Amino acid sequence: MTEKLGPEKIDDALAELNGMSPSKWQVENGKLHIKLDFGNFVNAFGFMAKVAILAEKMDHHPEWSNVYKTVEINLVTHDAGGITNKDFDLARDISKVM
Amino acid sequence: MTEKLGPEKIDDALAELNGMSPSKWQVENGKLHIKLDFGNFVNAFGFMAKVAILAEKMDHHPEWSNVYKTVEINLVTHDAGGITNKDFDLARDISKVM
Repeated sequence: MTEKLGPEKIDDALAELNGMSPSKWQVENGKLHIKLDFGNFVNAFGFMAKVAILAEKMDHHPEWSNVYKTVEINLVTHDAGGITNKDFDLARDISKVM
Repeated sequence: MTEKLGPEKIDDALAELNGMSPSKWQVENGKLHIKLDFGNFVNAFGFMAKVAILAEKMDHHPEWSNVYKTVEINLVTHDAGGITNKDFDLARDISKVM
């Protein structure tokens, strides 16, 4: 099973992730969190469609919401009870299509 | 401008809407609300893709969230400060593709 990461490993992985992301991820309520603004709904949902395909391919899915031009994403591994490498893998894929 | 509907008109429109919906809509926190289960992520997101196109066509967009197989939708007209006929129009379209 993918193991829950401790605070130090999360900090390291977060720094690396944010080095390659156009927007910044942070840990919020024990989940890897980001809020993005795409200017309009078509762009916001277009992004979601890309992420949906990546997530399904990875068999690891986001908790997310959309209000018009904004998309909020939370990543956590429920089986592990916290943030794991699977969440960082998905976050990296998401960052590539932002 | 589309006007905010009063409680009686909302009750009437809700009864009519739920007569044609496979799942039940209700008013929650001043918004037209529904929570749906699609069995898996592909079906859940496939539904969202249909709704996204309908919403953009209508130029009226949902506040919604997705966690794996479930989709929660809230409809409200911010300009009017409440639920309007635009929300019921979108809810009817959504019910047709559930």
